[in-house]
Amino acid sequence: MQSRAHYDFRSDTVTVPTKEMALDMIQCEVGDDVFEEDPTINALQDYMADITGHEAALFCATATMTNQVAIRSHLQVPPYSVVCDRRAHVFRYEAGGISFHSGAAVNPVLPKEGYHHLTADVIEANMVLDDDVHFAPTQLVCIENTLNGEIFPLDEIKKISQLVRSKGVRIHLDGARLWNASVATGISIKEYCQQFDSVSLCLSKGLGAPVGSVLVGSKTFIKKARHIRKVFGGGWRQAGILARAGLYAIEHHLPNLKRDHEHAKILANGLVELGFVLVHQPHTNMVFFDGKNVKLPGGDGFTMEKYSAMLARHGIKVFGGETSSGRLVLHHQIPTEAVELLLRVTREWIQTGN
Amino acid sequence: MQSRAHYDFRSDTVTVPTKEMALDMIQCEVGDDVFEEDPTINALQDYMADITGHEAALFCATATMTNQVAIRSHLQVPPYSVVCDRRAHVFRYEAGGISFHSGAAVNPVLPKEGYHHLTADVIEANMVLDDDVHFAPTQLVCIENTLNGEIFPLDEIKKISQLVRSKGVRIHLDGARLWNASVATGISIKEYCQQFDSVSLCLSKGLGAPVGSVLVGSKTFIKKARHIRKVFGGGWRQAGILARAGLYAIEHHLPNLKRDHEHAKILANGLVELGFVLVHQPHTNMVFFDGKNVKLPGGDGFTMEKYSAMLARHGIKVFGGETSSGRLVLHHQIPTEAVELLLRVTREWIQTGN
Amino acid sequence: MQSRAHYDFRSDTVTVPTKEMALDMIQCEVGDDVFEEDPTINALQDYMADITGHEAALFCATATMTNQVAIRSHLQVPPYSVVCDRRAHVFRYEAGGISFHSGAAVNPVLPKEGYHHLTADVIEANMVLDDDVHFAPTQLVCIENTLNGEIFPLDEIKKISQLVRSKGVRIHLDGARLWNASVATGISIKEYCQQFDSVSLCLSKGLGAPVGSVLVGSKTFIKKARHIRKVFGGGWRQAGILARAGLYAIEHHLPNLKRDHEHAKILANGLVELGFVLVHQPHTNMVFFDGKNVKLPGGDGFTMEKYSAMLARHGIKVFGGETSSGRLVLHHQIPTEAVELLLRVTREWIQTGN
Amino acid sequence: MQSRAHYDFRSDTVTVPTKEMALDMIQCEVGDDVFEEDPTINALQDYMADITGHEAALFCATATMTNQVAIRSHLQVPPYSVVCDRRAHVFRYEAGGISFHSGAAVNPVLPKEGYHHLTADVIEANMVLDDDVHFAPTQLVCIENTLNGEIFPLDEIKKISQLVRSKGVRIHLDGARLWNASVATGISIKEYCQQFDSVSLCLSKGLGAPVGSVLVGSKTFIKKARHIRKVFGGGWRQAGILARAGLYAIEHHLPNLKRDHEHAKILANGLVELGFVLVHQPHTNMVFFDGKNVKLPGGDGFTMEKYSAMLARHGIKVFGGETSSGRLVLHHQIPTEAVELLLRVTREWIQTGN
Repeated sequence: MQSRAHYDFRSDTVTVPTKEMALDMIQCEVGDDVFEEDPTINALQDYMADITGHEAALFCATATMTNQVAIRSHLQVPPYSVVCDRRAHVFRYEAGGISFHSGAAVNPVLPKEGYHHLTADVIEANMVLDDDVHFAPTQLVCIENTLNGEIFPLDEIKKISQLVRSKGVRIHLDGARLWNASVATGISIKEYCQQFDSVSLCLSKGLGAPVGSVLVGSKTFIKKARHIRKVFGGGWRQAGILARAGLYAIEHHLPNLKRDHEHAKILANGLVELGFVLVHQPHTNMVFFDGKNVKLPGGDGFTMEKYSAMLARHGIKVFGGETSSGRLVLHHQIPTEAVELLLRVTREWIQTGN
Repeated sequence: MQSRAHYDFRSDTVTVPTKEMALDMIQCEVGDDVFEEDPTINALQDYMADITGHEAALFCATATMTNQVAIRSHLQVPPYSVVCDRRAHVFRYEAGGISFHSGAAVNPVLPKEGYHHLTADVIEANMVLDDDVHFAPTQLVCIENTLNGEIFPLDEIKKISQLVRSKGVRIHLDGARLWNASVATGISIKEYCQQFDSVSLCLSKGLGAPVGSVLVGSKTFIKKARHIRKVFGGGWRQAGILARAGLYAIEHHLPNLKRDHEHAKILANGLVELGFVLVHQPHTNMVFFDGKNVKLPGGDGFTMEKYSAMLARHGIKVFGGETSSGRLVLHHQIPTEAVELLLRVTREWIQTGN
Repeated sequence: MQSRAHYDFRSDTVTVPTKEMALDMIQCEVGDDVFEEDPTINALQDYMADITGHEAALFCATATMTNQVAIRSHLQVPPYSVVCDRRAHVFRYEAGGISFHSGAAVNPVLPKEGYHHLTADVIEANMVLDDDVHFAPTQLVCIENTLNGEIFPLDEIKKISQLVRSKGVRIHLDGARLWNASVATGISIKEYCQQFDSVSLCLSKGLGAPVGSVLVGSKTFIKKARHIRKVFGGGWRQAGILARAGLYAIEHHLPNLKRDHEHAKILANGLVELGFVLVHQPHTNMVFFDGKNVKLPGGDGFTMEKYSAMLARHGIKVFGGETSSGRLVLHHQIPTEAVELLLRVTREWIQTGN
Repeated sequence: MQSRAHYDFRSDTVTVPTKEMALDMIQCEVGDDVFEEDPTINALQDYMADITGHEAALFCATATMTNQVAIRSHLQVPPYSVVCDRRAHVFRYEAGGISFHSGAAVNPVLPKEGYHHLTADVIEANMVLDDDVHFAPTQLVCIENTLNGEIFPLDEIKKISQLVRSKGVRIHLDGARLWNASVATGISIKEYCQQFDSVSLCLSKGLGAPVGSVLVGSKTFIKKARHIRKVFGGGWRQAGILARAGLYAIEHHLPNLKRDHEHAKILANGLVELGFVLVHQPHTNMVFFDGKNVKLPGGDGFTMEKYSAMLARHGIKVFGGETSSGRLVLHHQIPTEAVELLLRVTREWIQTGN
């Protein structure tokens, strides 16, 4: 397989299988996964259960599916509600899925002043544990790690997990990019995952598998999730070829994430030197920046629209838009020369307008 | 009819029909409202359509029903979302109904710094008008007036209404206590209601009818709402007796709201004199206060639990709880002597502990 | 209160309170039922729990609400399904409520050859007890008694109940007209109700209360149902006046049902003599007939449209329509003279065309 | 890729990619399909739109997803209902998805006496076109072709389509195995598809692609379907490798279906000779049989449990179970020798018990 040639900084979802991955993919043995007979899928699921310290796993087509299947599987009898970060993927970028699938109310909350992540006190203040008929009691708390590339501190996760579970409420982790958090902190996937009743881990972001995400949890939970996945139309057949890509990605691409994080720091420093402001320090593979202070020759204001058009001329893709803020996302198909190229052409553009 | 004797400041929902209202109620002619044959209900609906300037009306059992039926009737094809105030009744006190009935995502937002109500800029920033597959587009904005007894300024309503409608989005008013806003400002019910595609007006709060709320909107909308009401199990039969109570309440109790508002001011001033802090100035019939600075004899901290226990000894009901903040709600069955009694026994309690 | 003068055979929902009932209604003591403080509602609920042999009861605005609240309260975690009679009110006349509120699949089944009611074997063959991912397991079975006026035999109910419960599935009775079944068979309300996890009993059909239906079940179940009722917007306030009407109706109108059943037999026999066919023998207060063999003077075919137009001239209301089949429903405001009038004018019409 | 060696007659979903398909799959160019940038997916979608005569297409993970996304996308504003065959996959084997996703009521109907498929008169009698508040109006009719391997006659499809559309109701085809119908009848895919507002065509049944199904419809419809697919978690990334498998399957495996149909006839005839009864004549690639008349040596009754255990000893997989009826499904990985083997060992088993 091959992609159209460019350096794509829009997202870490855009990677394409390497030739080596592709050749590996077609070596696998497959079967009908609706009957739970695909040996490669079963191997991936066993592997993921093992490294996360959970009893069972379910391989799905997307991280949105593993999140939404998990949420729908956790919720019991309505009325109920879910507490999550207002900036969370499950709330903002999954098309209202929490309410769509479950009829659940969502209480989206922001971190308190001075924090980049939710804290146990904020979550406690926002859970509804009262069964007064006016309310929809909280049955689930969702955490995201990383969120916008920022790492959620393990000690706070532990406090939140303890609090939430002590109230009889369940807790799910959107760990689409937990791989990045683990690589950056050295904390094992297992240690993170033990704090949660379920975790969604994506294979198709920084890891670079073409398709797929894995949900882990107890056997009972995964059995229910498999049922819900079927209702969602997610009960695919011989998807072992994709599971094999996932296994390959874990073996061969996971070590690369460290380099992506270094690239993010290089980009962040470079942009700051050029007058950009960072929305926050890059913890992992994402750089969120604002160019509102950047002066373009001729006095024009900086917009992502202009910036993306310039970068496109150099084979670099970023999202456009009329705002002055944007993001750069690193992955294994952004080599060091692409990082250098981006900074070089940005400097020239700011200096010369070309 | 009669109630058990006490002064109930917990809510304006607690009023009971007076003897005069009861005698009036049983004079009415009734019929089967599922067949739209109850002449008294039809008369109430016609009257409400007329005074709100809308084409049609639907008489329902509760204000939660008129709100939730309206929201479900406005929403078209999912995925979709609703923008409302984070403090709104439809979001906080209707058991998650928006998401329960429609699978709609809700974006609950707070007023900007220095404001007690949402403003057009805040709403504009929080609507999703993009049909990108990651999002649930905003199809409805809900406003509440009064909200916690505070009046929503008409000029801001007009700005919001113009904005929302210019985007092809619908706008609903939870006007459970719009009667209070109208009496307090002198702005007609009609002028308020013209800014909205639908309005819910409750008869069973300050107005003092035992049961019932009215939804107004276009003929097409009310036809759909009648269908949704049936699914909700709200298609009642000979409810004309309650409609008659509503008509009686509008005629006889509406003028009393002015006195309730005066009582609220007297209470607020009295509490401030005793060391209480007001959460906000009382615009209408509700006083939100905090007793955290109130010192009780013996040095004990003020809690609503203690306060409500003391007041109960004098035949006064308020909500308890471990917090220091509470509310007092005025209605036509709180006479001036009850207001004076409350302030007097509060003063004694703070001074003497009894 | 009074109604517009006519004899209304369309439904037993059309009755209006008598003067005696109205005067009784306004004697009651009321309170805020959201706070469970309405003494008359509480009295009705206690009474209904007692006579049905269930722990608790909930007074709601309609029989559709008690049915739909019950169904939503019974269902646990999806995917799930409900088995009921294809002709059941919950399936055919509640606007798709089972699926609307719960997302539940419904498996509507017909009695086997030669039976007018479902039998245990048919229900067993139609329950899904397998948790294979392709299916939505049956979590609830609904029975209706009477259904189209026909009595469900108690021995079959017992077999079904035993079967369903032995499978861990719940069973609900739509007993909107269970009063009629009980009066007709002499089997107590309690004996019927003991076979079910919940029962909905309507006060506003043959009993003649203006508004209201009662749901009974266990304390846990009714607590959940109260919560669901609130989401539906059914948490009304001072509805004690309606509860009093229900208590009055049970005391004063329940004995009248026997007469309604006699009227039904008189009507059925009279129609047969005039050439009508009965869809089934009238067990209680409903007569389902077909006039396809009735010859009108001039050779015109019989339609309900023509029949209803003729009857309307004599102050008698029945449903119209282009079909030759229709129904007549008896209730306490159909006196014997109305039954005689209907038969007399029908005979004249068939003979003379006038 | 390879599968574990056996002849699997359970379903046509069990095929595994051939070596040739696998090598072809990894030649493709891929991209991020959420951004609609996967060129191979786009090519498949264009191809499918073209051969079905629809404007646009959407490639999804499963036929359940294309069906359920389509149904959810067609339905407008509730309350609503869907009419389909009681035996339809969308009703029986998709875990109650219609109601789960849409809250839609389903009216499942059987063909009239003497027919194996629904007819226009039956559908007309079962649609609800009345907007009376008691009903959930029919907004969608679903047809399945083939259904249990039986072909739906085109002339009846045309009558149904004309009827349904004349009522303003939409019509969807579950064409998971429309390929088989088209090959068997010689009627083009396009001629079938023109009768429907949307069609789901599976690539992962008889065609033998490992994963994937395509939905076709108008541009507006497919845009909505893409949004709904995202909510379902079906918005995958570089799935071009699967799309390529689909294109390969259409080119190389579609012609094989004719042979599968011949195999089905051989099997059916062979089974009849051995005393089996056919549930219906095999139109395409499925044989439904009943062994209730088959006598096993020793006088034991025939069950699928015993039969499947015997066949397993010869490397043949069929579903077991305590019933006497079963099915055999043909596909491109059931060669002629497998058909012969199955008949031979069945004969021996019936004659000798081994």
